[in-house]
Amino acid sequence: MTKSRFINKAIPMIVQYLILTLFLRLNIINSLPHPLDPLSPAEINNTRDIVQGSYLGAIPNLTYHFVDVEEPDKKHVLEWLSSNTKEKPIIIPRQAKVVVRAKSETHELVVDLTKRSIVSDKIYTGHGYPPFTFNELFQATKLPLTYPKFKESIAKRGLNLSEVSCVPFTIGWYGEKITRRALKVSCFYRGGSVNVWARPIEGIIVLVDVDSMQITMYNDRYIAPLPKAEGTDFQSSSSSRSKTSASCDVSDIGFSINGNKVKWANWVFHVGFNARAGMIISTASIFDAKRNKYRSVLYRGHVSETFVPYMDPTEEWYFRTFMDAGEFGFGRSADTLQPSVDCPSSALYMDGYMAGPNGEVQQIRNGEPELTLVVRMVATVGNYDYVLDWEFLRSGSIKVGVDLTGIMEIKAVPYTQKSQIEERVFGTLVAENTIANYHDHHLTYYIDLDIDDNSNSFINAKLQRATAIGSGTPRKSYWTVVRETAKREAEGRIRLGLEPAELLIVNPNKRTKQGNEVGYRLIGAQPVTSLLSDDDYPQRRASYTKYQLWVTPYNRSERWAGGFYADRSSGDDGLAVWSQRNREIENTDIVLWHTVGIHHVPYQEDFPAMPTIHGGFELRPANFFESSPLL
Amino acid sequence: MTKSRFINKAIPMIVQYLILTLFLRLNIINSLPHPLDPLSPAEINNTRDIVQGSYLGAIPNLTYHFVDVEEPDKKHVLEWLSSNTKEKPIIIPRQAKVVVRAKSETHELVVDLTKRSIVSDKIYTGHGYPPFTFNELFQATKLPLTYPKFKESIAKRGLNLSEVSCVPFTIGWYGEKITRRALKVSCFYRGGSVNVWARPIEGIIVLVDVDSMQITMYNDRYIAPLPKAEGTDFQSSSSSRSKTSASCDVSDIGFSINGNKVKWANWVFHVGFNARAGMIISTASIFDAKRNKYRSVLYRGHVSETFVPYMDPTEEWYFRTFMDAGEFGFGRSADTLQPSVDCPSSALYMDGYMAGPNGEVQQIRNGEPELTLVVRMVATVGNYDYVLDWEFLRSGSIKVGVDLTGIMEIKAVPYTQKSQIEERVFGTLVAENTIANYHDHHLTYYIDLDIDDNSNSFINAKLQRATAIGSGTPRKSYWTVVRETAKREAEGRIRLGLEPAELLIVNPNKRTKQGNEVGYRLIGAQPVTSLLSDDDYPQRRASYTKYQLWVTPYNRSERWAGGFYADRSSGDDGLAVWSQRNREIENTDIVLWHTVGIHHVPYQEDFPAMPTIHGGFELRPANFFESSPLL
Repeated sequence: MTKSRFINKAIPMIVQYLILTLFLRLNIINSLPHPLDPLSPAEINNTRDIVQGSYLGAIPNLTYHFVDVEEPDKKHVLEWLSSNTKEKPIIIPRQAKVVVRAKSETHELVVDLTKRSIVSDKIYTGHGYPPFTFNELFQATKLPLTYPKFKESIAKRGLNLSEVSCVPFTIGWYGEKITRRALKVSCFYRGGSVNVWARPIEGIIVLVDVDSMQITMYNDRYIAPLPKAEGTDFQSSSSSRSKTSASCDVSDIGFSINGNKVKWANWVFHVGFNARAGMIISTASIFDAKRNKYRSVLYRGHVSETFVPYMDPTEEWYFRTFMDAGEFGFGRSADTLQPSVDCPSSALYMDGYMAGPNGEVQQIRNGEPELTLVVRMVATVGNYDYVLDWEFLRSGSIKVGVDLTGIMEIKAVPYTQKSQIEERVFGTLVAENTIANYHDHHLTYYIDLDIDDNSNSFINAKLQRATAIGSGTPRKSYWTVVRETAKREAEGRIRLGLEPAELLIVNPNKRTKQGNEVGYRLIGAQPVTSLLSDDDYPQRRASYTKYQLWVTPYNRSERWAGGFYADRSSGDDGLAVWSQRNREIENTDIVLWHTVGIHHVPYQEDFPAMPTIHGGFELRPANFFESSPLL
Repeated sequence: MTKSRFINKAIPMIVQYLILTLFLRLNIINSLPHPLDPLSPAEINNTRDIVQGSYLGAIPNLTYHFVDVEEPDKKHVLEWLSSNTKEKPIIIPRQAKVVVRAKSETHELVVDLTKRSIVSDKIYTGHGYPPFTFNELFQATKLPLTYPKFKESIAKRGLNLSEVSCVPFTIGWYGEKITRRALKVSCFYRGGSVNVWARPIEGIIVLVDVDSMQITMYNDRYIAPLPKAEGTDFQSSSSSRSKTSASCDVSDIGFSINGNKVKWANWVFHVGFNARAGMIISTASIFDAKRNKYRSVLYRGHVSETFVPYMDPTEEWYFRTFMDAGEFGFGRSADTLQPSVDCPSSALYMDGYMAGPNGEVQQIRNGEPELTLVVRMVATVGNYDYVLDWEFLRSGSIKVGVDLTGIMEIKAVPYTQKSQIEERVFGTLVAENTIANYHDHHLTYYIDLDIDDNSNSFINAKLQRATAIGSGTPRKSYWTVVRETAKREAEGRIRLGLEPAELLIVNPNKRTKQGNEVGYRLIGAQPVTSLLSDDDYPQRRASYTKYQLWVTPYNRSERWAGGFYADRSSGDDGLAVWSQRNREIENTDIVLWHTVGIHHVPYQEDFPAMPTIHGGFELRPANFFESSPLL
């Protein structure tokens, strides 16, 4: 994963933006803005004008690293939602959260768009940095091309400098007391292949100090043969994906969009975006025909962080332990603030589409056609594509899926045949001179369920063997369900798969007619745990990947599992740290954090582009309804 | 699950048979029969004529329990396949394997259809019995209706006998030294509901001795209220499923059927059926464009056994520990041999259909539309539907899926509210007076992979943490892959999920150009282990469910994980017993046995019919091709 997160972005941006526009123009009804609506293009421009008009505007080289709607108070949002009048009695001020860098300092601003002023301005002095801007990444990759030693290295290899493209890598944190914003730049040879990732110029490492935008370390350690171009022709072509995305003619199946609010079958929910998470699903409720009302299920769900460590400890690879969402952003946008690309910039990678009769998913069961609706985002982060799906089923289930595909991150080696390899390698020889290195993908989802209101409990309902001896029958054993309510956060940290259990989120204050607590169930992803040692630096930064499930009390400021400032973070902020407080999580507003993990051992079939690997989980009603909602 | 495996079968039989006919008439080309073709209607009739013409025909009440093509020698089949001429030089005689019962003895016959004679006739004297015939099941369920004590019980409950339907249950084995063929019959009240399963007449148990067809034990232990009919209207209606099955117009996507041979995209394979397994996939090969030839992947794959224990140890429930495939049969057919239903009887539950542009599955990735083909069988075994899919992807993957849906097996109780329950119950109160009992589904697949020929090895490629200390970089750890070749069967018994590993089946004699062993990888189902105690009788019969993966050397007689004679089996035959021999499994013809398990804790949404629960696994090329076959 990773490699420049921006190369080849220009074309997909436009294509995908047009699709989104098409998508949003379907069946649009005028309405009040939803408090969780992402900032509109006008609001983004206004935000920028307000900041530029303040004292900050006078500072040279002010850079914008994060611009998003300021998280409104959940209480206010819920009040706003439950007020039924067209003229909402509650006015939630539109505010933007902005992170800028000025004079090598990180400013956290809250901009009030109604008051047209900065209402909060704090300087962040902790560990870690906001994501790099597009320009910073771009400039860093251009530096080697004019750097004499690099030109020498290229000449020494007999290559043509005009065919060289470089990509920026975040560098992680390895115990430094004081860090600087820096990138390591790695270069590739385009000559003969449209697949920019296929021909790494191995052995060179370039360290760029980003605040001064200078190369501060250069090492040409060794020369490896350039992998051949033949057989690598492949481009991540999001334009082809868009063909399916056009199937938006679904007005006949009871589907409508009102602003960012989607209504389909028995579901209503809000689709938002930001630069970091990409697509965000909010305030999803399902209509209960028996009770004749909408009942809340999910206040918010989105990707919180991704952790992608590579398993090669050598000089040019050891630092590749990416936290894509935090370091680069699945939405990738707020860094630009350019009129040509930023409206609404957060939608850049949204292939929003709805599956209808001729769409993506159609299941027929029990005489009841179970149509589903899939909201999809494709995040093409450099070499990798993440296809992120939120699927809403009439049965009440929400299925969250992630398909990984795209191009492997490869390393050039002298070998053409496995039998030649004598040293230790850290991946699979997938083609001549080409090793695809072992790595992981851990995608952590933020899932703020509000099951029929926001006082919820988490129940680990364990399946335990019981003895049948003495029952009067010849059976010796059976299993039964032992429900354990998690009282504090420590009981909400779970390694899946160690023992059979149903993982339930219930509202202990609401029961079905039969007296069962209303709830939803998490059917988890295949349990995958990070295998790095606990004291290894990348693992300290992503220590939350040691459990696949965490439960925390809702806290407005806790959304990003790896901490808000992921770049060069040291692990002193984030889910694992918050959870250490061991707060109460019973009968209160709680949040689940679930990690979909994949250990990726590459095979030759994954080259030059890998067939899809799927992961995902399901949120399924469990005594939420009185009976099957399909009948 | 079970409950009469034949009630409501008449209509689906016909509907589904017509669909199959439609399906098989698509694009049919005349050709030699494939040696693995199921018996044709004419062959079944001939088989019956030959048996009836023998000394057995003179025995009164001869019953047919199993009729299938006799498994041909694999060596001969492979020779037949590899001979390329239209006039195959090898003639494999058409033979039928027949199990009949005569004078309370079980005869295993091999009938040669060319010689028109019985070439082998053995009496089976071991534990267990073949499945009941349709007539036996039917007669057993009619017995209570004329049994005075039962009529008394119905009258005592104030019910109308004409509204009572009974269903037969297999009874398992509980340590008896000598067993008889017997069923327990349980009855339901139809009045007011079309859902025959909704209103159990609880507290009565009827034991039927099948060879004498008499009630040998009757117990009316207690009376429970009849669950109400309201809200239960639901019938397992396979007719609705058939709507999708008609989408067979796929001639434009390179799909053809030649007899039972299916050719699609880069795949060619054979689809067979038998009464026990249902759909059987055989001799699947994939075209390798780089090598310009078809390469073998799978010699045979099908459901081998299912184990469905209920978790209620009380008198009326403890014995419900079904082995559906062996006791009843996923194909359900050979018991009939009646002209009206037996042509070809093994196809009765086959909803064969192929997904094309408007079909079931269509994935678009990387600019390459990854069309897939799904071969589906729906086994409506009584109250439950098993939707069994074999999906062939152009990427070389085979995805095997099972969707569970249908009607819960329920128990009548006096309670309408959970708070009233004071005794121990063994399930969830899903409606008034209605408990849906806890249970498991373990589906064990037989998977005889022949990766590029049939000398294969199984490799447990473990992902193990390694230290990076001393590597000269600040990284402390990474993981690497340690490949362990299983030499004997003990090393092929694996509980999935205990440690991270890639499970590979390789051909150690064939390598890619880069020198990697060609192979396939099993991406297993969610690891689920039976929780019954090892010494419990149902568990002894299904002891193979303690591991999710077994590897055995190919043996023509080893196909049914729970033993061939599953009814009343004692666990002295089957996978766990064979594997105890600890045979060599390296670089030889090997078979994988993989169990897809689901612990089912019912919820109110599962009543009266449950939304689909999905399980499955993937067989994925792993250095089988030189590079991605999609490009």
